[in-house]
Amino acid sequence: MRKEAIHHRSTDHFAYAYDSETLHLRLQTKKNDVDHVELLFGDPYEWHDGAWQFQTMPMRKTGSDGLFDYWLAEVKPPYRRLRYGFVLRAGGEKLVYTEKGFYHEAPSDDTAYYFCFPFLHRVDLFQAPDWVKDTVWYQIFPERFANGNPAISPKGARPWGSEDPTPTSFFGGDLQGIIDHLDYLADLGITGIYLTPIFRAPSNHKYDTADYFEIDPHFGDKETLKTLVKRCHEKGIRVMLDAVFNHCGYEFGPFQDVLKNGAASRYKDWFHIREFPLQTEPRPNYDTFAFVPQMPKLNTAHPEVKRYLLDVATYWIREFDIDGWRLDVANEIDHQFWREFRQAVKALKPDVYILGEIWHDAMPWLRGDQFDAVMNYQLADAALRFFAKEDMSASEFADRLMHVLHSYPKQVNEAAFNLLGSHDTPRLLTVCGGDVRKVKLLFLFQLTFTGSPCIYYGDEIGMTGGNDPECRKCMVWDPEKQNKELYEHVKQLIALRKQYRALRRGDVAFLAADDEVNHLVYAKTDGNETVMIIINRSNEAAEIPMPIDARGKWLVNLLTGERFAAEAETLCVSLPPYGFVLYAVESW
Amino acid sequence: MRKEAIHHRSTDHFAYAYDSETLHLRLQTKKNDVDHVELLFGDPYEWHDGAWQFQTMPMRKTGSDGLFDYWLAEVKPPYRRLRYGFVLRAGGEKLVYTEKGFYHEAPSDDTAYYFCFPFLHRVDLFQAPDWVKDTVWYQIFPERFANGNPAISPKGARPWGSEDPTPTSFFGGDLQGIIDHLDYLADLGITGIYLTPIFRAPSNHKYDTADYFEIDPHFGDKETLKTLVKRCHEKGIRVMLDAVFNHCGYEFGPFQDVLKNGAASRYKDWFHIREFPLQTEPRPNYDTFAFVPQMPKLNTAHPEVKRYLLDVATYWIREFDIDGWRLDVANEIDHQFWREFRQAVKALKPDVYILGEIWHDAMPWLRGDQFDAVMNYQLADAALRFFAKEDMSASEFADRLMHVLHSYPKQVNEAAFNLLGSHDTPRLLTVCGGDVRKVKLLFLFQLTFTGSPCIYYGDEIGMTGGNDPECRKCMVWDPEKQNKELYEHVKQLIALRKQYRALRRGDVAFLAADDEVNHLVYAKTDGNETVMIIINRSNEAAEIPMPIDARGKWLVNLLTGERFAAEAETLCVSLPPYGFVLYAVESW
Ligand SMILES: [Ca+2]
Ligand SMILES: [Ca+2]
Repeated sequence: MRKEAIHHRSTDHFAYAYDSETLHLRLQTKKNDVDHVELLFGDPYEWHDGAWQFQTMPMRKTGSDGLFDYWLAEVKPPYRRLRYGFVLRAGGEKLVYTEKGFYHEAPSDDTAYYFCFPFLHRVDLFQAPDWVKDTVWYQIFPERFANGNPAISPKGARPWGSEDPTPTSFFGGDLQGIIDHLDYLADLGITGIYLTPIFRAPSNHKYDTADYFEIDPHFGDKETLKTLVKRCHEKGIRVMLDAVFNHCGYEFGPFQDVLKNGAASRYKDWFHIREFPLQTEPRPNYDTFAFVPQMPKLNTAHPEVKRYLLDVATYWIREFDIDGWRLDVANEIDHQFWREFRQAVKALKPDVYILGEIWHDAMPWLRGDQFDAVMNYQLADAALRFFAKEDMSASEFADRLMHVLHSYPKQVNEAAFNLLGSHDTPRLLTVCGGDVRKVKLLFLFQLTFTGSPCIYYGDEIGMTGGNDPECRKCMVWDPEKQNKELYEHVKQLIALRKQYRALRRGDVAFLAADDEVNHLVYAKTDGNETVMIIINRSNEAAEIPMPIDARGKWLVNLLTGERFAAEAETLCVSLPPYGFVLYAVESW
Repeated sequence: MRKEAIHHRSTDHFAYAYDSETLHLRLQTKKNDVDHVELLFGDPYEWHDGAWQFQTMPMRKTGSDGLFDYWLAEVKPPYRRLRYGFVLRAGGEKLVYTEKGFYHEAPSDDTAYYFCFPFLHRVDLFQAPDWVKDTVWYQIFPERFANGNPAISPKGARPWGSEDPTPTSFFGGDLQGIIDHLDYLADLGITGIYLTPIFRAPSNHKYDTADYFEIDPHFGDKETLKTLVKRCHEKGIRVMLDAVFNHCGYEFGPFQDVLKNGAASRYKDWFHIREFPLQTEPRPNYDTFAFVPQMPKLNTAHPEVKRYLLDVATYWIREFDIDGWRLDVANEIDHQFWREFRQAVKALKPDVYILGEIWHDAMPWLRGDQFDAVMNYQLADAALRFFAKEDMSASEFADRLMHVLHSYPKQVNEAAFNLLGSHDTPRLLTVCGGDVRKVKLLFLFQLTFTGSPCIYYGDEIGMTGGNDPECRKCMVWDPEKQNKELYEHVKQLIALRKQYRALRRGDVAFLAADDEVNHLVYAKTDGNETVMIIINRSNEAAEIPMPIDARGKWLVNLLTGERFAAEAETLCVSLPPYGFVLYAVESW
């Protein structure tokens, strides 16, 4: 066995409490190198006749990527304490893997050899709100979704959809526009909306906040927001707002005070200022988002700033009953701030959703003390490469997803915010080169996978556009210009997701990932319920073998309702180019 | 190159801020598999002509263990932000390792491929008190160190040292006894004392606290403690107390209330009680330390308990000016409690030392938000096996230490509490089978290694004893019965540690670890200062080649003061069985 590939550490994705009584222990081994793994475990204080008392249980392989196999054991230790190791077998070889290294036989003279999960504390559990797993999100860029109140539109706002947006143009979208179209969202099956920033700010995107306690007057007022949240809640739709705490806008009062009073300003420590007087050329001499002078970075370690921003965070929950905060540029703010943020908002509303914008590996924010989820750009990147750009093969795609899934605790994946696109990325249809069939596959994947899916407004009706500002066009409301077929596809998938718990909450397994045909088969399983998703990601029709023994099972085609008993040992599915099918597998 | 051995993740020992401007990035590769590694890095927002702007710097191999080589790069990013990857070379082969996997050439069209350290925040830094690196600790079990006030000794206390201790016997040791012997400690060179618990408790060890706000009357009173701390501080000795917060004693007021009032007690949620009435047989039906009914586990997630224990923690700092808290069974208390503990005590005294009792891998407690250090039993275990029990070879020992050192950030190692024995383990001389030469090697190793060394009272004069209670014998004060030679050895090493910054704060490198002779050579280096430690851990005299090119250097024998210019290309050192020598290496 290849020892340098065998790895475990008693933390993060390798060892964690899944719920208040269950521990998950995971092991990594070289791919196809180990036949059988057992967890060896016991209470650290359970001794008999000078020997530590342990037992063993088989571990189950939960997936593989290009390099590794991953093994899982689930244990419910009666006293919530655990010492453990791993017994690996390959051919005739046996290895015992412990915290102190490898042994041929399991030592029992001392527990100190073994890995330790000292105590399972509920308060340390990573626990995202349960409702998130059942939610289908819809991201709205308010300036471009709908103009419900022309009276408050910015001066010079262009007629709705009359031209392509520029970085600075306005079209008059507002909160009333969202309220007016909640029936549309409800019809689609949406159960959560995420609004990019709505607080007072000069830009059309409003990531340059001028006042965190005011609704932007072009979007509406506090009454409008109250109405919006109330109407949403009546329809079973949750509301998430965007918290831009990494930086403020140039017009933010305290920053203006520093511009005016320099080193004498009482707000000078609210920012990261390297020298006075402030200057913006050639580069700002104060920290900013990226190098953008209009977005001065806030000093979130300063007690006053922290107090101010935590007041903001709690104010909009307490007064407006919002259900989540999406945290902009969350990775560039200190961990200590986010810990206090979590304490503050969860004290007020325990099931509020805390979602960080992090594009890279986010383990340090997902240990239970900070976020409930991050925006899953790792998944989006892989999906776009496989389904849209086609520069990733089926096996690479499956490997990549398995790698990401096994780099986090299971419940982290279950609450992940699975977007495919956003106001920061090109539109799906554009990335797909205009091929709606590929867009359909992207939605199929997103809406059947583990996590909390989010649709970027307009992608469901086939809107197009490259990078910002093109991806921020006005929502198309003219039915003639909407792709109704795509809309119905998304609507059907959302309905199936609601119907089948396995799609929302099931474990995922890749059953086939073929690089010749480029087909992909995966299953979602929850208890006795299994749904198989079969995808032909190629430009040619394909006969795809179903990689399960279906004898004694009913197969229900979820798109047509067609139901048949599988009697043959091997079944094949004929799929057109970029075709797909979903089967629920039921026992006779 | 063996891809499954190449590993990095942007957290913990792989990626951390070493100080407020320096990031450490580490890479693991298979041992002897890779010739050369470069860090590829840049500011995430630095673009030019559509390409991300990065640079490279060579990484340096900081050590190896049985399976892996470890590489380090130190970077000071001007805007405190970093995206990075690794360029590995072996023979003619080149690999670029990124967060998204391996490439042949470094992609520059997107930073999303790369690992990310998004922002270096001082508030998130792991930063132990600086003084800890210069401290030599002495652990005192107060009931057995010295009886300074016979008037307050427990009834039935045995005459000092008249017999071996039992689990329940008393000998009358107290705080006045410690005060009386501070000159002894100062003479030895001690600069920190750690006292096992001193609060009111029925046992001799006092890990069964009855009252956290009172000194045990057999140990003295609050005035005695004030005097003790004052006298210590006058002598440059810091004082650390033992916080037993995982569990209380049976006599603790709130627990007595629960025993009396059952489910009606207002303290019932202070504990983890599974059912009423409480019973202790066959096993307690409430959570305890191990299965000890006399030690009921406290519910540290309960707001009242938290408030109470944090009041305890701050009280003894505020009123008595203690310098550290050693946290008993720290691993079985929730992380959230320890985060709040850190905030509370550091707010009061920023350089207080927070030391957790954790015997296993302790990464989750050493991320900057909880402890400054843990008791380094991982190091103790290896040292005892190599020097005392001789069931570990020189190369296994070096590998084991390199493994432990590379499993934590560098500054964690620098503040680690390096004990060799304690009130919970057999005495050094006993583990060494009575061979004082081996005890000398253990002290030599401990007092020249990275970390904050701690001597268990009496080990420096050759006291003996197996496991508890034997290792808790009365301190021997009769000079005739003390091993003065051992004492002088320890004293000399402490003095050398104070004299040579390289011994206290230098980087460690193993230069030779020979399994035939069982000799070991390692160097400690700080800037231009290098000290080499050469050890013959065998029962026969040995000629040990010095694994450095010493031409053009002065070698100073630190034990004798002898100084010579090394003119030969290869030098050998003759050492007797279990002999050793320390050389300072100086340039001509
Ligand atoms: Ca409007
Ligand atoms: Ca006494």
